Amino acid sequence: MNKLLPTLALTLFALSLSAQADPRATGDLGLVIEREDSAALIINTTEHKQLAKIEGLGDLSHASVVFSRDQRYAYVFGRDGGLSKIDLLQDKLDKRIIQAGNSIGGAISQDGKLIAVSNYEPGGVKVFAADTLALVADIPAEYMAGKRSKVVGLVDAPGQTFVFSLFDAGEIWTLDMKNLQKPVLEKFKGIGKEPYDALISPEGRFYIAGLFGESGLALLDLWDTAAGVRRILPNYGKEDEKLPVYKMPHLEGWAMAGDLLFAPAIGKHEVLVIDKRSWTLLKSIPVVGQPVFVMARPDARQVWVNFAMPDNNQLQVIDTKDLAVSTTLTPGKAVLHLEFTPRGEQVWVALRDDNQVVVYDTATLQEVARLPARHPNGIFFSARAHKIGF
Amino acid sequence: MNKLLPTLALTLFALSLSAQADPRATGDLGLVIEREDSAALIINTTEHKQLAKIEGLGDLSHASVVFSRDQRYAYVFGRDGGLSKIDLLQDKLDKRIIQAGNSIGGAISQDGKLIAVSNYEPGGVKVFAADTLALVADIPAEYMAGKRSKVVGLVDAPGQTFVFSLFDAGEIWTLDMKNLQKPVLEKFKGIGKEPYDALISPEGRFYIAGLFGESGLALLDLWDTAAGVRRILPNYGKEDEKLPVYKMPHLEGWAMAGDLLFAPAIGKHEVLVIDKRSWTLLKSIPVVGQPVFVMARPDARQVWVNFAMPDNNQLQVIDTKDLAVSTTLTPGKAVLHLEFTPRGEQVWVALRDDNQVVVYDTATLQEVARLPARHPNGIFFSARAHKIGF
Repeated sequence: MNKLLPTLALTLFALSLSAQADPRATGDLGLVIEREDSAALIINTTEHKQLAKIEGLGDLSHASVVFSRDQRYAYVFGRDGGLSKIDLLQDKLDKRIIQAGNSIGGAISQDGKLIAVSNYEPGGVKVFAADTLALVADIPAEYMAGKRSKVVGLVDAPGQTFVFSLFDAGEIWTLDMKNLQKPVLEKFKGIGKEPYDALISPEGRFYIAGLFGESGLALLDLWDTAAGVRRILPNYGKEDEKLPVYKMPHLEGWAMAGDLLFAPAIGKHEVLVIDKRSWTLLKSIPVVGQPVFVMARPDARQVWVNFAMPDNNQLQVIDTKDLAVSTTLTPGKAVLHLEFTPRGEQVWVALRDDNQVVVYDTATLQEVARLPARHPNGIFFSARAHKIGF
Repeated sequence: MNKLLPTLALTLFALSLSAQADPRATGDLGLVIEREDSAALIINTTEHKQLAKIEGLGDLSHASVVFSRDQRYAYVFGRDGGLSKIDLLQDKLDKRIIQAGNSIGGAISQDGKLIAVSNYEPGGVKVFAADTLALVADIPAEYMAGKRSKVVGLVDAPGQTFVFSLFDAGEIWTLDMKNLQKPVLEKFKGIGKEPYDALISPEGRFYIAGLFGESGLALLDLWDTAAGVRRILPNYGKEDEKLPVYKMPHLEGWAMAGDLLFAPAIGKHEVLVIDKRSWTLLKSIPVVGQPVFVMARPDARQVWVNFAMPDNNQLQVIDTKDLAVSTTLTPGKAVLHLEFTPRGEQVWVALRDDNQVVVYDTATLQEVARLPARHPNGIFFSARAHKIGF
């Protein structure tokens, strides 16, 4: 008998016990997407620390992330049709499938059991079991015989429902997945030309699609689908533009703060303030560049804005009481994305061309931490698990 | 050399590995308070399962719970001045102190580092470090020389602030804890007689205290403290009552759904609908008994109401679109508390006199599960960690 064996085994046992002695909670975790590396960093927002790097995630040029309801797993939607399930407790890629040729985003159902992905090619929505990534439903976006549309603006809504838009068809569809054997589709036609993205209000009631092919926005009230889709803000959009559009703004990044909706003007150096009660324009706030993401701090007192080139080294903070810019920050090169901590005391900012993530205290606007990250282009925190429409 | 030793060690190692192989995430956990047992059950809301029972928590007749920002720890505030820190990952009582003689509730700071407790005896607020429970600040509620007031309605607000009311003094105080060495108090005097409880709006802007000694409510806009406290809903309260009051309703249980605030009428069989834009009464909805908790489903489409004796075997669901009761449920004996899952697909209901917790699907209103619990009187889910004012 080798004398070392029991010692070795006991050491391993002790090591594994010590690993158990400091188990990881999942409420303050997040992912930072590293586009060029096809990777994601698992980070801890309390310690401002990288916990692990998960590689092999494919094309992340337009990545988005949702979280399981226990906040153990992150689902990463890649541009190449990849759907990757990351285990935040064991620092590993749990599963990965290529579910389509070209994909644009996804959502998780209200009960956390279903993952839906919106695809460009072939155009449609696929729904997977969140645990196994087995296909549950395949919904081709066939809007006339033999014609399938690109699908955009996919979000989850209350009642095990997903809502999405058909770019080529000018339609909005709702998909009720209460009965897995019998998905129920409702189709709204003629909603406007080329819906290119959409958002849902924080409570999950109003679905709003932006139109690339004409001006205005398409609004569907999910509490009153019989009323159909109506056009709001008829002057919003391309036709009114004075400047070339460097980047179409993301609608998911629009900010709802109380009764106000803050939205990027397209092609103009303005953030629009929209009254949600009447869906009319209340004010235009001048900003330093073409806004891309317009995001509300969770307490709704501040709205943070980043910009398209050549102003993408700046961030502006709007005070929602005064409806005016209160501060301009220059955190670094290529501010691509930002994410607030769940209760808003800090914000994490991705600086792609500085290979860094910077963290600010949102009250003092002082820098709290900087972390290395290779070409970061997206930041997503696990608290999203508990929100509708993310 | 004992041949068994390496085998034993390897077995232990394997066992500990298998324990590690199924680590616990914390996004879908919660506590059910068992009043008579001085205990709390750790539960999993995905599996509808009890994970552990934590005992020795003292007098839980008026218990409330907050969660650490990583959702690993639950802090239980007991009536006896006990402050208990429970480890949700290791199923144990991590720490417990008796910090006062008689206590009524607590809150956790925006950054998760501070726990504040409101005390009746001696009247005041104590602030503790969330990790060690070491005393950080002691704020006696001294409103005139030698006179200390009972403190009620303590909530957290953005900017490392706590807000609370002085029952005996008729005052509202804000406590800014940004600088631990120099807590900053602001005092609002003459706000009304005997504030007995309070709530803060979901974004953390409006603090509203109920008055026991006169009618109306005291409103403080934290975005405009210079404007002071004003009286709203002047007819709300005791003077208008037609029936004996069996139980003063909880203000924390008021529901904000969009622009509407749903509040229990005191002593009457009504739920009041208040327009948050003007702070005026919009409608009274008749209900089956004296309402106690009036709580909005996270998507704001439903408001659930429980009742004081003798109607405490019932639950009513209000449709917030129609502003009318849509369903009446009779889940069991003594419906004392309820808690929605973070995205609202289910609700957990405490049935004290049935020794059970029942879970409903909020869309179908069908029962999903029943769990045993000894005299449950409170249910709190870990998603509260990410919310302001809980």
